[in-house]
Amino acid sequence: MKKLILYLIALLFSYSGYCQKLTSPDNQLVLTFSLLPNGTPTYQLDYKGQPIIRNSKMGFALLHVDRPLAEGFRITDTQFTSSDTTWEPVWGEEKEIRDNHREMLVCLQQEKTDWQVNIRFRLFNDGLGFRYEFPVQPNLRHFRIQNELTEFSLTGDHKTFWIPADYDTNEFPITTSSLSGIAALIDEVRKEPLAAKSPAPNLAVQTPLMMKSANGIYVNIHEAALINYPAMHLNVNDQTFQLSAHLTPDKTGNGAFMQTGSATPWRTIMVSDDARDILASNLIVNLNEPCKIKDTSWIKPTKYMGVWWEYFTGGGSTWSYTDYSDIIIGQTDYTKLKPHGRHGANTQHVKEYIDFAAKHGFDAVLVEGWNEGWEDNHAYIKERIYSFTKPYPDFDAKELQQYAAAKGVKIIMHHETTSSVVNYEHQMHDAFRFMVDHGYDAVKTGYVGGIIPRSEHHDSQWMVNHYNYVTETAADYKIMVNSHEAVRPTGIHRTWPNWIAQESARGTEFESFKGIAPDHTTILPFTRLVGGPMDYTPGIFQGDLSVYGSNPAKGSSTLVKQLALYVTMYSPLQMAADLIENYDRFPDAFQFIKDVAVDWDNTWILEAEPGDYITIARKSKGKNEWFVGGITDENPRESIIDFSFLPKGKKYIATIYADGKDADWRTNPQSYLISSKTISQKTKLKQRLAPSGGVAIRIREIE
Amino acid sequence: MKKLILYLIALLFSYSGYCQKLTSPDNQLVLTFSLLPNGTPTYQLDYKGQPIIRNSKMGFALLHVDRPLAEGFRITDTQFTSSDTTWEPVWGEEKEIRDNHREMLVCLQQEKTDWQVNIRFRLFNDGLGFRYEFPVQPNLRHFRIQNELTEFSLTGDHKTFWIPADYDTNEFPITTSSLSGIAALIDEVRKEPLAAKSPAPNLAVQTPLMMKSANGIYVNIHEAALINYPAMHLNVNDQTFQLSAHLTPDKTGNGAFMQTGSATPWRTIMVSDDARDILASNLIVNLNEPCKIKDTSWIKPTKYMGVWWEYFTGGGSTWSYTDYSDIIIGQTDYTKLKPHGRHGANTQHVKEYIDFAAKHGFDAVLVEGWNEGWEDNHAYIKERIYSFTKPYPDFDAKELQQYAAAKGVKIIMHHETTSSVVNYEHQMHDAFRFMVDHGYDAVKTGYVGGIIPRSEHHDSQWMVNHYNYVTETAADYKIMVNSHEAVRPTGIHRTWPNWIAQESARGTEFESFKGIAPDHTTILPFTRLVGGPMDYTPGIFQGDLSVYGSNPAKGSSTLVKQLALYVTMYSPLQMAADLIENYDRFPDAFQFIKDVAVDWDNTWILEAEPGDYITIARKSKGKNEWFVGGITDENPRESIIDFSFLPKGKKYIATIYADGKDADWRTNPQSYLISSKTISQKTKLKQRLAPSGGVAIRIREIE
Repeated sequence: MKKLILYLIALLFSYSGYCQKLTSPDNQLVLTFSLLPNGTPTYQLDYKGQPIIRNSKMGFALLHVDRPLAEGFRITDTQFTSSDTTWEPVWGEEKEIRDNHREMLVCLQQEKTDWQVNIRFRLFNDGLGFRYEFPVQPNLRHFRIQNELTEFSLTGDHKTFWIPADYDTNEFPITTSSLSGIAALIDEVRKEPLAAKSPAPNLAVQTPLMMKSANGIYVNIHEAALINYPAMHLNVNDQTFQLSAHLTPDKTGNGAFMQTGSATPWRTIMVSDDARDILASNLIVNLNEPCKIKDTSWIKPTKYMGVWWEYFTGGGSTWSYTDYSDIIIGQTDYTKLKPHGRHGANTQHVKEYIDFAAKHGFDAVLVEGWNEGWEDNHAYIKERIYSFTKPYPDFDAKELQQYAAAKGVKIIMHHETTSSVVNYEHQMHDAFRFMVDHGYDAVKTGYVGGIIPRSEHHDSQWMVNHYNYVTETAADYKIMVNSHEAVRPTGIHRTWPNWIAQESARGTEFESFKGIAPDHTTILPFTRLVGGPMDYTPGIFQGDLSVYGSNPAKGSSTLVKQLALYVTMYSPLQMAADLIENYDRFPDAFQFIKDVAVDWDNTWILEAEPGDYITIARKSKGKNEWFVGGITDENPRESIIDFSFLPKGKKYIATIYADGKDADWRTNPQSYLISSKTISQKTKLKQRLAPSGGVAIRIREIE
Repeated sequence: MKKLILYLIALLFSYSGYCQKLTSPDNQLVLTFSLLPNGTPTYQLDYKGQPIIRNSKMGFALLHVDRPLAEGFRITDTQFTSSDTTWEPVWGEEKEIRDNHREMLVCLQQEKTDWQVNIRFRLFNDGLGFRYEFPVQPNLRHFRIQNELTEFSLTGDHKTFWIPADYDTNEFPITTSSLSGIAALIDEVRKEPLAAKSPAPNLAVQTPLMMKSANGIYVNIHEAALINYPAMHLNVNDQTFQLSAHLTPDKTGNGAFMQTGSATPWRTIMVSDDARDILASNLIVNLNEPCKIKDTSWIKPTKYMGVWWEYFTGGGSTWSYTDYSDIIIGQTDYTKLKPHGRHGANTQHVKEYIDFAAKHGFDAVLVEGWNEGWEDNHAYIKERIYSFTKPYPDFDAKELQQYAAAKGVKIIMHHETTSSVVNYEHQMHDAFRFMVDHGYDAVKTGYVGGIIPRSEHHDSQWMVNHYNYVTETAADYKIMVNSHEAVRPTGIHRTWPNWIAQESARGTEFESFKGIAPDHTTILPFTRLVGGPMDYTPGIFQGDLSVYGSNPAKGSSTLVKQLALYVTMYSPLQMAADLIENYDRFPDAFQFIKDVAVDWDNTWILEAEPGDYITIARKSKGKNEWFVGGITDENPRESIIDFSFLPKGKKYIATIYADGKDADWRTNPQSYLISSKTISQKTKLKQRLAPSGGVAIRIREIE
């Protein structure tokens, strides 16, 4: 009789109509898992009683296997757990991060193959994460995923902030349109001239994908812990508003090479009716593994300057040393070549930056163009492009090491790989050893151009493994990594906090190319920054580049908005990107950049609407000092800054950097006004922001 | 007037009907270079007044360029030089090697593009080498070669010793047929079960390609100095007997990625009416660069045994440690796994080999299966297959280091990469450091299975660079390399003599699989060994493997032929491959293996006919001691050994290891007879060789 009951329970349990629910700690989100009659796993996500993701299929198409790993499943077990903990990041927007979630593990077995797949759901108050797990099992060990079949069935034609799916770049401008409007616009966006492009063949967009429903629900889809798996893009069905996973394939048609005893990255869906919750969410880092570096004392948030922007201004300075360009690394003797005289990274010029950085309290100076190879850096066809241990003849690494050390400034190493990745891996140990020997503790890496190994894309599984390999190897040498043109981040900086920042989006350099739209920085925190900090390199005071010569580019913001970005664009690595001469021209405005912190105890998202405006307040790490940054898109606005985040019962002095009355990003970007004000927790400040303007405030306690 | 004359000379010079001749030092070979009316470069090679290569086109098809780099050329310069020098190899068949050649450099410019290509011809008495050079020039720097168009227009339907062109393996059995007979046979040969196969899509064969014309001229086509270029196969036109270059493409369709300031490998054509000249030729090494290693004292010819053959006999011993096979390197804790008890590379067993090697004067013991990962070594899909620094729990590297050192024996490291090449490169520095720390000075590398990076083949340009990279890096650690399943050699061991041997052909292991044909070792010295020494691993006394259990394989030779291979298959690295117990059974025959040298002052090819027989005599390096080895195919023969190579006026004692009267590879392979004889320079010995039999002779001066 007992056996019969158990059998009936088991039968009920494996019944394909069976469904299972999980609720968030605040009960606002409900996740429903069920099997379709054919044994296909599905999930649905409801928010405040309404579906936000309609019933959506899950599974995989495999290579060299006829039957997809997406049907014929039965449930063999379901386990529920919950967890509410806090942890301290090495650096971040908050001193402590709470990880409060409920979890459901659904164990599935495909009946015809006996293959087992588990799906682990974690539901937080601000969203859902789920991943597929492939336990060690008798009948399956190695397999190839052609594509993941995970769907995200949206409830309507949401407003969407998107860039086209592309396997090799994420530097497109961000377009705002309805889901149904993407198709008409995407081909034009794809024409954007970028160093490496491999468009997905179908209608697809990149993550983090930010959306807003007609009834004001904000939805953000991304992934967490992208490890040993290709990056996910999203196919768009603009009839049904169904999104579906689109894994970056390698050039031989493989999605992912898998071995059991592994898991996919987490698929994340943040949900709120308040846009500020998206910016405040820690869902992505909470879904990553804890820090794997034992001694993190050498990982330091950094404010830096650089021999860099001058290469973009059109002023003539450049990375290369000579006009002779038939370079063969290891054979070409640079000491015998005639310098062209426009080489930026020469010892004397770097010393000027070190002097300036030391005088103004910066931690470091980035130097690009210090090493052999820039004259002939053809991507993809050439494999050995640079030496990462041989400086140009006019860059004296030893002398600069001593000079910088004497001034208390670090030099930041630059490793532009031009995507000759295997060659970079060949040189990497020597390159890191060179850094250690010459006092460098941070490297900016770059991945311009098509990838070698030539089977790979920037976002394919192999390259994902490469970025992680570089980061982990760098940690062995106590080196911080700031990667440019790498796959966009997925919160791995929790596990490897030496991966201190990434670019992986359209950054400030585009101010000198095709331009940055005024709403760009009001969107990035909702998209790119959801995965991790960005080395956006703000602080361009002289946006109009025509003053230098031939570059007609104009800036996209007021000068004050550039200041505000140090607060709104969170990063533990912040550059003051402009030239020394421009900071010397505006020393009072520059004071904000000198003062602003790069690590924080707390963060308060005060105002936020993607594509329109963002206002954020933060408390400096370990100091009674606060900063506020507010920005707007092309439209002027009145920001109402509520200082209730300040501790009660005290007085504070606020130094306010505001757009001038006549400020306008197009006509008068350098108009600003600096004032001081005594404020308290009760103060509410009405502050006008110019078109593409901003506001930046420093707040100190009055002792 | 002077200008006019110069103009007329220039006109004459660039006249497309212009041709230029180069003769070999002995005037027997004549190379004729000419341009066709359309400006296509061609060459012809005559031998003793008869064409041996008819007029053949030269050039390239480029990717992303409409016009092939193969027509519209004019000659801008022609330079003649000659050279007669000698050099000393670090190890080899000769103490000194003569490099006597005449050279012609033809400088070409393509009229419509202004692109410059030079062709350098070197004519030796035993053959031709030529290569394309791409000088640094104003209008061309980077380009992609889709295929090389070099032709080798043969004069008839030659007898040919061939294996099918395949981008990933050279382990096919060798077929003997006419050129016109290849097509009917090749599909069947391609069915041979091999670990990785990527057949060329058309009728094509591999080099070194050995041929014999109807009128008895021997022709061998190969290449020298394969550096930063794909390996060349040969398309076969079996109507016109025109061969043409077929470069190994990568999987994205590229042949070679080129930068000016470079050259292709040399294309080599050896020619003689005496087959012995092909075996005696030093053309390939002469076309390679001199040694690049300054201190070569650590590079030592080596005779070794190994924990190896037992894995092939079917006796049960194996590479793996446990039956548990869900291995993740770096995570799996082997100390917690139950050993299956059949692991060959355990400390105790390795000590037995060290004892035996020490007792019998061997230099080293190879140990395969010492490291983590063998339980789950799935190729291509799995990237991190092995650790190269973590021994299995029952392999005590420190203890064995001390044990071997005390006995004066080296242990040879084994790095089976299973072609997960990028991961091997990741681990390589640590792996070499582990070797240095544990007293290893030689490594056997392996490339079983499909290559990662997945765009590549074993023979594509990227992998060619990999093998060279491993060799050069190993030299930094003073490590000798013996590569298996790598691209076949092209004489690079002159430049990097630490690349002490390669497999790169069907070796002795196949005695345990599908078998080795009796004529195989009479062909290999004319094909595979033309490029460099082979780690053939001879010395199998017990060829019938059924004695061990389930493996029905029978050996392909008599026991004495196995002895003779130590002389006929030149290598500075020679293994005594059989089990200890078999050498203990035949201690008198084993004495020859103990005695035979692995480095030589002089070599005399006494008798040779590809596919039929080879008899070679060699003088031990620095010793008044000679060895003779003679082998035959499936047919018995009478060898007439002429000892005129011995110094005059002295008496010598010859210890002769001969097939027994009833010896036969099929029925009685272990029948042998050892005798001694006093000989002099005038002696001519008639010696009967059994079917697939041999003769091995040790000669010492009578003091």
